[in-house]
Amino acid sequence: MEQGNEKLAVIGAGSWGTALAIVLADNGHHVNIWCRNEEQKKEINEKHTNHKYLPDIILPESIIAHHSLHDAIDGVETVIIAVPTKAIRDIVKEISNLQTNPMTFVHVSKGIEPDTLLRISEMIEQEASKDILKDIVVLSGPSHAEEVSLRHPTTVTVSSKNMSAAEKIQDLFMNQHFRVYTNADIVGVEIGGALKNIIALAAGISDGLGYGDNAKAALITRGLAEISRLGTKMGANPLTFSGLAGIGDLIVTCTSVHSRNWRAGNMLGKGQKLEEVLENMGMVVEGVRTTKAAKQLAQKYECKMPITEILYSILFNGVNAKAGVEKLMARLKTNEMEDLVDILSEQMEQL
Amino acid sequence: MEQGNEKLAVIGAGSWGTALAIVLADNGHHVNIWCRNEEQKKEINEKHTNHKYLPDIILPESIIAHHSLHDAIDGVETVIIAVPTKAIRDIVKEISNLQTNPMTFVHVSKGIEPDTLLRISEMIEQEASKDILKDIVVLSGPSHAEEVSLRHPTTVTVSSKNMSAAEKIQDLFMNQHFRVYTNADIVGVEIGGALKNIIALAAGISDGLGYGDNAKAALITRGLAEISRLGTKMGANPLTFSGLAGIGDLIVTCTSVHSRNWRAGNMLGKGQKLEEVLENMGMVVEGVRTTKAAKQLAQKYECKMPITEILYSILFNGVNAKAGVEKLMARLKTNEMEDLVDILSEQMEQL
Repeated sequence: MEQGNEKLAVIGAGSWGTALAIVLADNGHHVNIWCRNEEQKKEINEKHTNHKYLPDIILPESIIAHHSLHDAIDGVETVIIAVPTKAIRDIVKEISNLQTNPMTFVHVSKGIEPDTLLRISEMIEQEASKDILKDIVVLSGPSHAEEVSLRHPTTVTVSSKNMSAAEKIQDLFMNQHFRVYTNADIVGVEIGGALKNIIALAAGISDGLGYGDNAKAALITRGLAEISRLGTKMGANPLTFSGLAGIGDLIVTCTSVHSRNWRAGNMLGKGQKLEEVLENMGMVVEGVRTTKAAKQLAQKYECKMPITEILYSILFNGVNAKAGVEKLMARLKTNEMEDLVDILSEQMEQL
Repeated sequence: MEQGNEKLAVIGAGSWGTALAIVLADNGHHVNIWCRNEEQKKEINEKHTNHKYLPDIILPESIIAHHSLHDAIDGVETVIIAVPTKAIRDIVKEISNLQTNPMTFVHVSKGIEPDTLLRISEMIEQEASKDILKDIVVLSGPSHAEEVSLRHPTTVTVSSKNMSAAEKIQDLFMNQHFRVYTNADIVGVEIGGALKNIIALAAGISDGLGYGDNAKAALITRGLAEISRLGTKMGANPLTFSGLAGIGDLIVTCTSVHSRNWRAGNMLGKGQKLEEVLENMGMVVEGVRTTKAAKQLAQKYECKMPITEILYSILFNGVNAKAGVEKLMARLKTNEMEDLVDILSEQMEQL
């Protein structure tokens, strides 16, 4: 293992926060992890497990859990924000109120805020007080927490407006199993991560309906085109969508049983109602909220997004899942190149 | 179902030939299917099954099996060649000797010939006599035979130098479940179909070693870049690799249990020798031969293809699978954009 000795805080002890704490502890860093829940804090400190989120994993003893946010971030220069998108603003505000020294915020969540249509780094920028905000870095890519905690080979991308901050974070996380690459396109990295959850929900629905792998592959292919089209209009580099934070993350989210968004879509495809599904999951399904935001973005940027449109109508307007997916299949253009040429020429203009 | 009444021949009664015969029969066409094996012919005509290749499927009675090639192609203007790449030259030569009227050859195989480095349409062009060769059309895309035979939604691409021939084939196959798109880039469609089998073998090895979905997603991402880079140097339109015959087919082949090449790779990853694997499969694993051809192509076009190189050394030079895949992971560039920018700028020059 690499030898580090930085003091770091991971805020949020869900599966992803915990898995990243393991990577950092493996690298020799002193890791505080903040738990919203007192019981969970006790479990981590006493049993070195986090049963609800990472069953069967023994955590390194060097990970220390805190219930007090103040204690968790005390003396720390880098904080990893690993809470659901919905909770980001509040937690960053709270940290700002407690902290006096400048710090780097690393966020590892995937979503876009409905109505404001802001990316997560933009939300952090709004909420963190100027005195303490040093840099914002996003970490994204094809990375199921379960596999990371088992030290299976994983590759992710880090990005920031300030690339030397991204490189610092790359060094903190990089080890033999967890390979970290840099990409200067923070817009693309955040958009790719957020929008893939929409396609994963759709892929889950297709699988839940029993449509099979051929249909799902077609859906993922069109999904990438759709993400790419919107992302480029929003200022992303189209190449990012061909990389780990684009197609890589999209594939893993649409084809792995570990994927929450896929699982939620799968239940929808099998006929469950959205409320039932969300209740059964017991964890946040980011794609549902992101679908709302993406529909608004499609409107704002005048961008055709057929998968997003149809998923929105299934999730929020009571459209039957089977009818929706069949409509989608029928809507594909006859000459697939025409469609792709459209998208690429739009993207070329942005380069 | 659509109503057709063309007389067609499918040459080869493996799983893919049989599944395509079902699509054509569903569309109302008169379908002859040629079987190399007398027993199989009897089974299809008497029991309307093809147990070895499509267990549990009842074939439409309008599919008539022949053991005589002469009888199978008699009076037919369109022939679908569905034999392994290795057998293409001989079968086309034989058809040429029997046939006197012009006909369209549709090929549905995925491979590149080692040493000559020809695509399948080029091999057909060499072997078919000029008097009878009307057009050559390729049909490719994310399409497991098992799912097609169950009438699950499937989308494929057809391509030809002569687009009106491709459109004719689109009409023959198109129905509610089987959506056919046209793409004028025959080079890209053939290259995408052939090379994805290499990545599927590598993905199978990774899965066989227990590396998980994160590692596989990284491998597929880099695999697409590799295919794209070579294909573009060979004259393909880079956009094709973002479509059904590129990323679509790649995803399904790397993530579906139906995939032969993935299954073969999986056994290699679990420690079996290549000879054992090929014996156990009992069906042709096109990716093994394609790896040879792709290594030669990489040399000819001076194209970096790390996944192909390492797979070749595992398949043919006795390199240990685990050591090979670990070497691959370590070889990835630190800045993923540099690599992608390299590839795209090469591709832009070709557009």
